[in-house]
Amino acid sequence: MVDTRFFRSAGSLRLSEIAALTGASIAADGTRVFSGVAPLDRAGAVDVSFLDNVKYVEAFVASKAGACFVRQKYAGRAPQGMALLITEEPYYAYALAAQRFYPELPLAAGISPQAVIAGSAAVGKGCRIDAGAAIGEHVTIGKDVHIGANTVIGDGVEIGDGCRIGALCSISHAILGKRVLLHRGIHIGQDGFGFAASKKGAVKVPQLGRVLIGEDVEIGSGTCIDRGAGPDTVIGNGCKIDNLVQIGHNVQLGLGVIIAAQCGIAGSTRIGDGAMLGGQAGISGHVQIGAGAKLAAQVGVMTDIPPGATYGGSPAVPARDWHRQTLALAKLAGKKEE
Amino acid sequence: MVDTRFFRSAGSLRLSEIAALTGASIAADGTRVFSGVAPLDRAGAVDVSFLDNVKYVEAFVASKAGACFVRQKYAGRAPQGMALLITEEPYYAYALAAQRFYPELPLAAGISPQAVIAGSAAVGKGCRIDAGAAIGEHVTIGKDVHIGANTVIGDGVEIGDGCRIGALCSISHAILGKRVLLHRGIHIGQDGFGFAASKKGAVKVPQLGRVLIGEDVEIGSGTCIDRGAGPDTVIGNGCKIDNLVQIGHNVQLGLGVIIAAQCGIAGSTRIGDGAMLGGQAGISGHVQIGAGAKLAAQVGVMTDIPPGATYGGSPAVPARDWHRQTLALAKLAGKKEE
Amino acid sequence: MVDTRFFRSAGSLRLSEIAALTGASIAADGTRVFSGVAPLDRAGAVDVSFLDNVKYVEAFVASKAGACFVRQKYAGRAPQGMALLITEEPYYAYALAAQRFYPELPLAAGISPQAVIAGSAAVGKGCRIDAGAAIGEHVTIGKDVHIGANTVIGDGVEIGDGCRIGALCSISHAILGKRVLLHRGIHIGQDGFGFAASKKGAVKVPQLGRVLIGEDVEIGSGTCIDRGAGPDTVIGNGCKIDNLVQIGHNVQLGLGVIIAAQCGIAGSTRIGDGAMLGGQAGISGHVQIGAGAKLAAQVGVMTDIPPGATYGGSPAVPARDWHRQTLALAKLAGKKEE
Repeated sequence: MVDTRFFRSAGSLRLSEIAALTGASIAADGTRVFSGVAPLDRAGAVDVSFLDNVKYVEAFVASKAGACFVRQKYAGRAPQGMALLITEEPYYAYALAAQRFYPELPLAAGISPQAVIAGSAAVGKGCRIDAGAAIGEHVTIGKDVHIGANTVIGDGVEIGDGCRIGALCSISHAILGKRVLLHRGIHIGQDGFGFAASKKGAVKVPQLGRVLIGEDVEIGSGTCIDRGAGPDTVIGNGCKIDNLVQIGHNVQLGLGVIIAAQCGIAGSTRIGDGAMLGGQAGISGHVQIGAGAKLAAQVGVMTDIPPGATYGGSPAVPARDWHRQTLALAKLAGKKEE
Repeated sequence: MVDTRFFRSAGSLRLSEIAALTGASIAADGTRVFSGVAPLDRAGAVDVSFLDNVKYVEAFVASKAGACFVRQKYAGRAPQGMALLITEEPYYAYALAAQRFYPELPLAAGISPQAVIAGSAAVGKGCRIDAGAAIGEHVTIGKDVHIGANTVIGDGVEIGDGCRIGALCSISHAILGKRVLLHRGIHIGQDGFGFAASKKGAVKVPQLGRVLIGEDVEIGSGTCIDRGAGPDTVIGNGCKIDNLVQIGHNVQLGLGVIIAAQCGIAGSTRIGDGAMLGGQAGISGHVQIGAGAKLAAQVGVMTDIPPGATYGGSPAVPARDWHRQTLALAKLAGKKEE
Repeated sequence: MVDTRFFRSAGSLRLSEIAALTGASIAADGTRVFSGVAPLDRAGAVDVSFLDNVKYVEAFVASKAGACFVRQKYAGRAPQGMALLITEEPYYAYALAAQRFYPELPLAAGISPQAVIAGSAAVGKGCRIDAGAAIGEHVTIGKDVHIGANTVIGDGVEIGDGCRIGALCSISHAILGKRVLLHRGIHIGQDGFGFAASKKGAVKVPQLGRVLIGEDVEIGSGTCIDRGAGPDTVIGNGCKIDNLVQIGHNVQLGLGVIIAAQCGIAGSTRIGDGAMLGGQAGISGHVQIGAGAKLAAQVGVMTDIPPGATYGGSPAVPARDWHRQTLALAKLAGKKEE
């Protein structure tokens, strides 16, 4: 069901293989063969689908998918003939199956004659550098790295093995760990917004730090990460950052922080391991977000947040208080006091 | 009054021609000749201007414009000698006149020797491809298409006749209809933000859909549109999307949806025909916005919105309730209970 | 303490020289020699640091910095042996010292053979134009200008002496004054979002103005500034604009306006001299923000703001009222009326 101009299945799998790969349990015939994945409303007899959100139960009931990852509690509503892959993590199981059907293609190594690479740059084995890429002096690029078209890498930058840098990115003053995935139009390492207010107006403060990006980090298109002012800006291993996010100078993200699109994190703020930020969240400078904290979309944070807490609203309050305030205000206004 | 380094009038028009072109009615001498358009405060005797916003009535009264599109109700306040073009749609009439005075220039066809075009790409007649553009394998480009400098088109992309793609864009996994206008630095078709939470951390979910863009769509600079996860991301005919907007995977926009700058639309949300979103609006994933709905700037939508409704606030409520809540809260706080 | 792959000190300074340069007063031995600057927690015996935020007093107490800019009131808490540079503007003094230690490097003039420059473009002395830059017809570039890699300059643009244009920017329909600093991925001069609603749908309104940028303006990565619709979009001298900001058509910024990341300013709004906008602030179209006004992060402004006022909240109210409303709502909800 995929568009073969853009994707190609690596081949068929038996139901029993899919179950073994994903840890799902099956009651149906394990020898049935499937050729790919598809969403519930588009899947056919040879496709595997998934149900992970109660909003799509009707689509599940009506689906023509040959097989489906599903929680036990919905199994009874499956259409006749659908082979059920029972799991309490259907989206995760689907991800594993989809990765197997459509594995990332191996990198076609080669350096475009239209790339411009400084003589002192070191490029590892198996790299692919596309047309128009500009690589500065003393840049170090590891093995099996892809540098997309028209991307610009500044002097001295280090890029670890297996990184995938999309088109039209700029990177300077930065050290990237292994397997970092940058989508497109990402700008890393520019000056932070550092001005000293004085009687003579705003004076520029030299930005003398770097951006340090860990391993297995993924960053979305259009996102900007400023370099440190003196300390470094640090993105921990396994962080996942969506599109159009702003990360100010000296920000430190712990391990596995998840940041949705259009969030803004002001300078010198620290975010603990595993914290999650909803879309368009804004966090002031110089605050600390505890490990595992969850911040709602459009939250406005101006103070420290304890570990594991869930906050919402602007200014941010604990989620329970936020919902209570929303209800109280609706009730107050409902009195039609105006 | 335009800067001739950047714009050039196609020639003069008589007042009667302007009236005929725009449907405005005139009382003045139809043979008067005008050479262009200009804003109220800069227009001279040979310029046509417009009044469409009550905030600019004073500028209208003081204007030296030779002619002006204006609603009947303001006609009495016109300065002496100004030829009035009476219409109930003055901004629309102005747009038609301005298009006539300053028509889009015909595309100067030609392929830059610094463009890099794959051998299997098909480029239609009359296209212009600027320096540094990189066109992938099996790309299909229609007739009279402009690809701006340093823009990157991924393998298999289809671009319809008459599209105008600005500089520094990236497009992959996408099908564009006719006459799509992309400004600059737009990123279309990258992976959606798809991770399955699991006990082993965030696992990447292959993004196997496309971006389908209809006809006569306009998209602003810096906007990002992720490709579908399995379903497609769909932008309907006639949609107008401003700068720095985020559109997540599987989002479906109906016909003629208007989205102001910096809005964010999370994954799998559907927006009905003719809906309008104010700036910095945020919409959660998996919700439905009805046709013709109007969402205020900075709204935060977490639930379905009925067709034709007007909502504001975060969390969003009907606009009437939003204003009532704003007043009630001001009144409550005015009691100085603190 | 800086990473010498990216930064290099211009040489050592005596404490007395640092004091003279910054106006700080010293009690310690003026002949002590320092080689650079560093943050409190990383500075060593030959580094100069600063304390400007009460949150970092503990880091000050524990610092191994050889010298430190500090206000008189914290002097008593300095660790033994630290040379104190007493000033009431420690961040400003630090900025001056850091500029001296790490001066901006002189531009290495030269035009890359991979740049594409139209025959009618005029490029001044001492310019550097990097690979992949595309310069249009009749462009005028002053002296000592840097045009970054893959940046695209449209026909007729004027760029003043000493400008620094980063990589991957696009500029059209614009006049830039002297010493403008653009970071990367900035898009200036595209069409504003101009559509006339009509019974026949949204009709495009030709955008016939320019972008006029004054002197000593700094603009962050990913920011978009649309050209005027007829009037010009104007950015006054000394404005500092952070990353991912949206500035609509006809907006006028006065002198020295400070705009934090991800702000959005809708069309035809005017902002007075020295106003300051917090991150993610949104301002509607056609309003006036008075000189010196301060707008909190995430503010939503729909009406004029008086000069010198401080506003917060969405919809915006005076900051005092905003805080009072926040407290009143918390108190109301605390009654657990739900």
